[in-house]
Amino acid sequence: MNDYIKKMTTHVSVRDFKDIPLSPETRKALLTAARSASSSHFVQAFSIIEITDKTLREELADITGSAPYVKNTGTFYVFVADLYRQSRLLIENNKKLDGLTNMESLIVSIVDTSIAAQNMALAAESMDLGICYIGGIRNDVRKVSELLKLPKYTFPLFGLTVGVPASKNKVKPRLLEKNQISENYYPHEQFADLKEYEKVSKEYYSSRESNQKQTSWSESNVAFFEEIRRPEIAAFLKEQGFQLN
Amino acid sequence: MNDYIKKMTTHVSVRDFKDIPLSPETRKALLTAARSASSSHFVQAFSIIEITDKTLREELADITGSAPYVKNTGTFYVFVADLYRQSRLLIENNKKLDGLTNMESLIVSIVDTSIAAQNMALAAESMDLGICYIGGIRNDVRKVSELLKLPKYTFPLFGLTVGVPASKNKVKPRLLEKNQISENYYPHEQFADLKEYEKVSKEYYSSRESNQKQTSWSESNVAFFEEIRRPEIAAFLKEQGFQLN
Repeated sequence: MNDYIKKMTTHVSVRDFKDIPLSPETRKALLTAARSASSSHFVQAFSIIEITDKTLREELADITGSAPYVKNTGTFYVFVADLYRQSRLLIENNKKLDGLTNMESLIVSIVDTSIAAQNMALAAESMDLGICYIGGIRNDVRKVSELLKLPKYTFPLFGLTVGVPASKNKVKPRLLEKNQISENYYPHEQFADLKEYEKVSKEYYSSRESNQKQTSWSESNVAFFEEIRRPEIAAFLKEQGFQLN
Repeated sequence: MNDYIKKMTTHVSVRDFKDIPLSPETRKALLTAARSASSSHFVQAFSIIEITDKTLREELADITGSAPYVKNTGTFYVFVADLYRQSRLLIENNKKLDGLTNMESLIVSIVDTSIAAQNMALAAESMDLGICYIGGIRNDVRKVSELLKLPKYTFPLFGLTVGVPASKNKVKPRLLEKNQISENYYPHEQFADLKEYEKVSKEYYSSRESNQKQTSWSESNVAFFEEIRRPEIAAFLKEQGFQLN
């Protein structure tokens, strides 16, 4: 395993940053990394908005529910799944938008955006910066969309905080390989057994340095999914012009 | 810009591979990289299926429309957005599934899966292997799902070919920074001008080593989106249990 991959295996999300801004060179490198990723049919269906205005950043931070570490990281980016460019091109060329607004195209833009963000995340970590994805901007997509003046055919997918870590947790133990990886077909049998991983994850949560809890991966997932989270996402996507069909 | 990021900027999708299998160590490293990425609330909502069966690989390759380079790469992986594990946990705990089947949760699983795949892609490139995302497995999601025996609450998002490149194209010029990156709000004004990029992209397509074309980014995007692609995706997702609500 080379150093590049070893570095990947040390990934933890950072939620405790020093209040140090990032240099223009660093930010440039992050954006270049993001823009170098793969893109489906090279549609490049994303935009990145860097939040430099203090008031705006505070407003967004409050929406995320992760205010302490969204306000004080080096930089906060919002990643927008974006088919607005193409909608304009289609309209200019007197074409219908049905091919742009269906589920397939929405998925293309979400995948493109995620891949670009992960390039930025790894670029940041290669410079010994820490990152945290902030799905919390989806807590109020309408408000975020208004604040960022997003046009139709766009969707604020997540934020990404990038900064100098003040502290870090231990690397979280992943699902066991047999729970997640298989050959030729879905791992129905191996999957049935999550017990081994339960033990591993329980031990992690009870022994990590901060935010210790008596829980396991399964318990934490049941708690997460038994709640209906962000029930307005589908309606918002429709307002943005996606037909979800 | 460090070497790690420089490497990212050399990314091109590879569609011409030597027929050389990948060693067990290499495949292990790729999978470890994928499993080390960030995950929303650590739900780890993906599975990876490695296609080692020759007949199955040929069947999948034919579906993708990219048969030559799906059949003959070192390895072909299918990335599955996967909430099946959590559905079982909820059922075992007598909980409703509405929190798992809504649009928000589907997005969480698509993002998790994409981020994991991009880790694998960059890990591959760090070992001087080439990769190509294969969205073409969505050409017939029902058939792919049947072949891979996918359970409910899963979605075959894309394939990833990884192998030893036989040849490579030049790096594609990305949208200009002003077309894609902005501060504090969506770049409405800067975006209006794609003309500069049109010139750059035209030159790229007409001068690259293989598959030269007289087209521009805008023309190629209009052609891509004026067609309604994969119109059955939404219906398939509903069959898989996602409510798209």
